[in-house]
Amino acid sequence: MKTTVKYHQGDPWRLSEAAFDPAYLGKYEAIFTLGNGYLGTRAATEESYVGEKRDTFVAGTFDRFNEDEVTELPNLPDVFGLGITLDDNPLNLAVGEVVDYDRSLNLATGELTRRFIWEVADHRYQFESSRFVSLAKRHVLGQRIRITALDQPTQLLLTAGINGQVTNTGTQHFNDDVKRLYPGNILQLSTKTDQSQINFVITSGHSLQTEAEVGTVKTEMLRRKLISTYPVSLAVGQTITFTNLTTIYSSRDRDVTYPDIASLRELGLKRTTNLQTVGYDALLEESGQAWQDQIWRGMPIQIESTDVKDALAMNFARYHLTVMTPAHDPRMNIAAKGLSGEGYKGHTFWDTELFMLPYYIFTYPKIARSLETYRFLTLGGARRKAADNGYRGAQYPWESAWIDDGETTPVWGATDIVTGKATKIWSGFIEQHITADVAYGINEYIQATGDTDFADAMGYEVIIDTARFWASRLEYNQKLDRYEICDVIGPDEYKEHADNNAFTNHMAKWNMQLALTLISELHEHRQATYQRLDQRFDLVALAAEIQSKLSQLYLPEPNDEGVIPQDDAYLSKQTLDLSAYLKEDQVGSLFDHFNLEQVDNMQVTKQADVILLLFLFEKHFSQVIKRKNWDYYEPKTTHDSSLSLLTHSIFAADLGDQALAYQFYQRARDIDMGPNMFSSTDGIHAASIGGIWSMTIFGFGGIRYLDGRLRVSPHLPKAWTKLAFQLWWHGQKLAFEVTHQQVTIKNLTGTKSVSVDTDHGVVDVPENTAIAINLA
Amino acid sequence: MKTTVKYHQGDPWRLSEAAFDPAYLGKYEAIFTLGNGYLGTRAATEESYVGEKRDTFVAGTFDRFNEDEVTELPNLPDVFGLGITLDDNPLNLAVGEVVDYDRSLNLATGELTRRFIWEVADHRYQFESSRFVSLAKRHVLGQRIRITALDQPTQLLLTAGINGQVTNTGTQHFNDDVKRLYPGNILQLSTKTDQSQINFVITSGHSLQTEAEVGTVKTEMLRRKLISTYPVSLAVGQTITFTNLTTIYSSRDRDVTYPDIASLRELGLKRTTNLQTVGYDALLEESGQAWQDQIWRGMPIQIESTDVKDALAMNFARYHLTVMTPAHDPRMNIAAKGLSGEGYKGHTFWDTELFMLPYYIFTYPKIARSLETYRFLTLGGARRKAADNGYRGAQYPWESAWIDDGETTPVWGATDIVTGKATKIWSGFIEQHITADVAYGINEYIQATGDTDFADAMGYEVIIDTARFWASRLEYNQKLDRYEICDVIGPDEYKEHADNNAFTNHMAKWNMQLALTLISELHEHRQATYQRLDQRFDLVALAAEIQSKLSQLYLPEPNDEGVIPQDDAYLSKQTLDLSAYLKEDQVGSLFDHFNLEQVDNMQVTKQADVILLLFLFEKHFSQVIKRKNWDYYEPKTTHDSSLSLLTHSIFAADLGDQALAYQFYQRARDIDMGPNMFSSTDGIHAASIGGIWSMTIFGFGGIRYLDGRLRVSPHLPKAWTKLAFQLWWHGQKLAFEVTHQQVTIKNLTGTKSVSVDTDHGVVDVPENTAIAINLA
Repeated sequence: MKTTVKYHQGDPWRLSEAAFDPAYLGKYEAIFTLGNGYLGTRAATEESYVGEKRDTFVAGTFDRFNEDEVTELPNLPDVFGLGITLDDNPLNLAVGEVVDYDRSLNLATGELTRRFIWEVADHRYQFESSRFVSLAKRHVLGQRIRITALDQPTQLLLTAGINGQVTNTGTQHFNDDVKRLYPGNILQLSTKTDQSQINFVITSGHSLQTEAEVGTVKTEMLRRKLISTYPVSLAVGQTITFTNLTTIYSSRDRDVTYPDIASLRELGLKRTTNLQTVGYDALLEESGQAWQDQIWRGMPIQIESTDVKDALAMNFARYHLTVMTPAHDPRMNIAAKGLSGEGYKGHTFWDTELFMLPYYIFTYPKIARSLETYRFLTLGGARRKAADNGYRGAQYPWESAWIDDGETTPVWGATDIVTGKATKIWSGFIEQHITADVAYGINEYIQATGDTDFADAMGYEVIIDTARFWASRLEYNQKLDRYEICDVIGPDEYKEHADNNAFTNHMAKWNMQLALTLISELHEHRQATYQRLDQRFDLVALAAEIQSKLSQLYLPEPNDEGVIPQDDAYLSKQTLDLSAYLKEDQVGSLFDHFNLEQVDNMQVTKQADVILLLFLFEKHFSQVIKRKNWDYYEPKTTHDSSLSLLTHSIFAADLGDQALAYQFYQRARDIDMGPNMFSSTDGIHAASIGGIWSMTIFGFGGIRYLDGRLRVSPHLPKAWTKLAFQLWWHGQKLAFEVTHQQVTIKNLTGTKSVSVDTDHGVVDVPENTAIAINLA
Repeated sequence: MKTTVKYHQGDPWRLSEAAFDPAYLGKYEAIFTLGNGYLGTRAATEESYVGEKRDTFVAGTFDRFNEDEVTELPNLPDVFGLGITLDDNPLNLAVGEVVDYDRSLNLATGELTRRFIWEVADHRYQFESSRFVSLAKRHVLGQRIRITALDQPTQLLLTAGINGQVTNTGTQHFNDDVKRLYPGNILQLSTKTDQSQINFVITSGHSLQTEAEVGTVKTEMLRRKLISTYPVSLAVGQTITFTNLTTIYSSRDRDVTYPDIASLRELGLKRTTNLQTVGYDALLEESGQAWQDQIWRGMPIQIESTDVKDALAMNFARYHLTVMTPAHDPRMNIAAKGLSGEGYKGHTFWDTELFMLPYYIFTYPKIARSLETYRFLTLGGARRKAADNGYRGAQYPWESAWIDDGETTPVWGATDIVTGKATKIWSGFIEQHITADVAYGINEYIQATGDTDFADAMGYEVIIDTARFWASRLEYNQKLDRYEICDVIGPDEYKEHADNNAFTNHMAKWNMQLALTLISELHEHRQATYQRLDQRFDLVALAAEIQSKLSQLYLPEPNDEGVIPQDDAYLSKQTLDLSAYLKEDQVGSLFDHFNLEQVDNMQVTKQADVILLLFLFEKHFSQVIKRKNWDYYEPKTTHDSSLSLLTHSIFAADLGDQALAYQFYQRARDIDMGPNMFSSTDGIHAASIGGIWSMTIFGFGGIRYLDGRLRVSPHLPKAWTKLAFQLWWHGQKLAFEVTHQQVTIKNLTGTKSVSVDTDHGVVDVPENTAIAINLA
């Protein structure tokens, strides 16, 4: 595979673009995305190319273009695009020669740098640029570029500004706008989303440092665009340094006191003026320090491997998790592509609970709480969805955006190659396991943290109201005298309208069972909470209903061959040898040959489905059953979803097959960071990036929290000599150090003893003491 | 000036781009615009470049993005953009070598062709493309491209489709849409404007002819976009010919019976399927024939000049007048940039009456009637505007769009470089002469055609109701005991809030005087019309009011130096030597140095103002006065409006200064067609293009219609040996042939004698006889 991605031996903090190719714009725009959870901006190059996607998003600022579309995260006006013309040659690396090209993301500091020498018309120019989004000051973006004329006097025209002509793939969310030019080369654009009426103010302060002669600066206000032109006469060897310090504020920000447009404009002008006093270097330094304090030194993770990419992957994952997660505001959640692209419109899926939440529960429990508080805040939409579908309780949206939006899954998707028509996206209607997934995430958070404050105020209500949904959802099958769940989509989205999807039925059962246990516990031990919830839900009647239905709920169990049927029909469908399709580089290639209806009629699975069930409920199934289902389903799985490989890696590690686990790990690790130049175009894969942590800590580290117990049972791959990490458990910060020989656990907080399950039985880790467990 | 525009000696029908430079995209996109008055499409190249503007407009289909914007002509999904990749090299003429480049517009047939050889990675490929918009079938667009691998086997990937991700400079007017793929490689996209709810259906039929091996064609439906990919394995010397025949229908079309979206989709599919049977060559041939029949042979104009550009300019002008004019529908009018760009949003200005209408009155009187019927149909908006401003009668919008829209001038414009704020556009409020200009155009049409049917049904009502506006508009100045018109903008838009602008006051007077004469004539000779209008307007009272006010209306007259003051303040303002600013290539450069307020306080004029007054009312002023005002005002005029030079050229010819007239003619002729590579980026200059005809026929040909009389008084420039043209006058088609020695007039219709004023007195041109007049 042709690739320009470069890794650095001995340096797990740097990821590079080794050569520029305009065919690969999207790859680096996505994987080099800068951000801080409040805002994210794709790493479009300074100069423009056909096919670039110049996206900047502020988390949670959803807007809906019109009634035919669903709400999406709107693409804000761009501030990083520059026009650079050298003696009438516009900077364009497809033209002339490019020497010493390097673009690198420093994961440790969040700085993106780029340098190269451009030879055009027999002359050479040196470029160096730097860019960051501050982790210390969430509204701040910085950009600096240096251009040197190496061998001839040159007329340089540099244009910079604020460009609101960008769209979301042609969809415009913003009003035309108020543009202002202030003294000191400060440009300001105020605008507003059309439907959601969110005010935005973008204020850029420019400065130019050079010994060269600078002509008259001209600022134009065009439609949706302000642009300043800086004409510079560079003598040989002279350099200009152009700096752009920008602030972005919106009326949705909780740290803004007065959200009206006039106050926001005043604020933006004041803050940007301040930034110019502080200067680029100090702001970059401050942001790098925040990365050190909050992420790298705050919760270190160390991997010693023969392949630098393994440690790099963990840093890459944690970098992107930080960039994508709106930790500052519980009204927001993580999008399936983070803030790195327009894919999935900034919406939140079950990915949060299944694949990103574990990282936060163990690493930043406060952020985990914020993510699950979001689910509490979206209860209104979930209740509306249940009612709209004729159910009771809370039915969570498959895709979730702003807390008031309810279901935001688009109704129409890609073309059916046989009929020529757009296919209907059924997920918003019948991919119902999301409701149990949310309850699952909330329970995991409560179990791992013991956060009774959250549980009483928010978590229990969600668990009970989702169980209430399931109770109303079950369908009675008179012939078989049992309850069933028909016409759903399970995790394997290639099977639309499945009956009794094993994953869904088991999750529904678990959800109802949890509520039942909870109701009884609350009644016994937490009367105040019980009373409050009882007034809302009539818990006695609800518990009786759940109890009665649960006993008759059909759960697909292993058949004679030990295989759990994915759904009622799966095992009787025709089989297909997938090997021909799995060789191709891109996912979804099966659909070049078959339409969804045809795939629906084959034993072909998109992603971990039964395997995911076995992973989540590991204690309920024997190793023999797990291995049999792996042998049956894995060869039938296309792994077309980025959620699949990571589950298979952890599952293989659980099965004790480290070599296989490492193979899947490598494939999952490389989805975004690897050499495939087209996998990340629409944005990075948030779940897969969460999975890099899960595969490492859950899979190889063998950490798990099961029924309120912490477990460690490491399976380090051969290539690794050491894995060291820290995690929080019930308010205690624990440090783990895993080698092939032993695992050491130390309680760093040391205010209480922690009990851990190991392969050698229960181990108590007392206060301030390290415990070593041999793995022989 | 660096330029790539190429003219062809001996061929006044061909205009070429001699070399490709991506810096000049906008120039050729605009001047090579294809269209037929129903639709227009900028000539964006097949392959895409940064900075391109890929616009397609259907006349009259205005939409308003939201309440902060004004209505504009929305940019339709593009069908001409292609993706072309040759062995992984995307076609990009900034890369590699380009040999034998030529892009030419054939004005005679409306065919745009392009050819070149592209050398990349040591291999050569030949390209030939052809494109047209049918003049015979107004819904039809055609495109054909041939690619030959000259020296090596090549994997070609060709992508073509319908791309609705385009916007109006970032503003999206269309809903996301229904996309369909039909058998036979027919792609269809249905969409709708958001506010005006106009349905559109675009249907493209692709076909591929080649002896080479074609792989599996794949069609993707993306957001706002359908795209088919054709993979071809070209052997050495093999060629593919790709043809795209497209239809566009909208629910606004008067030739569509059922405008609902389902019927439109059916219609589009049926018609596009038909086109594929007819074939590209036959459709192109049919369209070329329509150009011959309707334009070139129907109303020939012949210029014999030492400079081929003079004859070329007339063909260029008539080509663009045909492309820009929605002659098929009186609910539409000509936009200031035609259908060739987003400048002025597709709006209609006084340009129509002053600068395009004369061509149509004399060449296609039916189209002239349609253009003035539009003004009748917009009376509602004009009456609303008058009422909103506290006046009576009809006050025409400065900018006019759909017949119901009323005033559509945007309120905010470019930046004030001193204050940093956007400047207010006052034209929509106080550039009031437009109301008299409309009456002027309508009167000209009636005078030159004798179309009493139009006059009775529509024209007289406009003349009377505009006079009614003026009567209510006049302000009484007690101190001077006279009526004045204060706080207006005249043709010189650099003088905002002028009092007693000479042009405005004279036009208002003329408008009121015309109504007075008309009321009296109608009373005497056309009682039915009189009765109908009397019931509406109470003509006796209105006539009395007009009569009384008119006698006291202040009209700026020549002062002691013979100079007519442009307004009350102009002559007392400071003067500025303009020579420094007029050297610069681009218009408006004065505003890099002064803001509007500063320019307002100087004796600087944007465009013909007093000169225009003297031109329109030539009989009212002596040659001496005309010359004195020329000497005074011309050196103070920046000609920043494209309406200025043409008026000066005609005026200089009227003064008998052919050399000067020819100088201005050349400058005006070259505004779009000339070597300036940046003047046409936002679209061609419709008025200036109308002016090419006016300068030729009015200026050099000396034709004028004054007070109902046709006059000929030629002033051929030295470079010209002959000018032959035809025109309609009161239902008679007259042929004029002008040389330096004589003018010959022949009545081709020959059903009645025509009386013509000449320098030698009145000449009668009898039926079917040629009359020669010596010019000695």
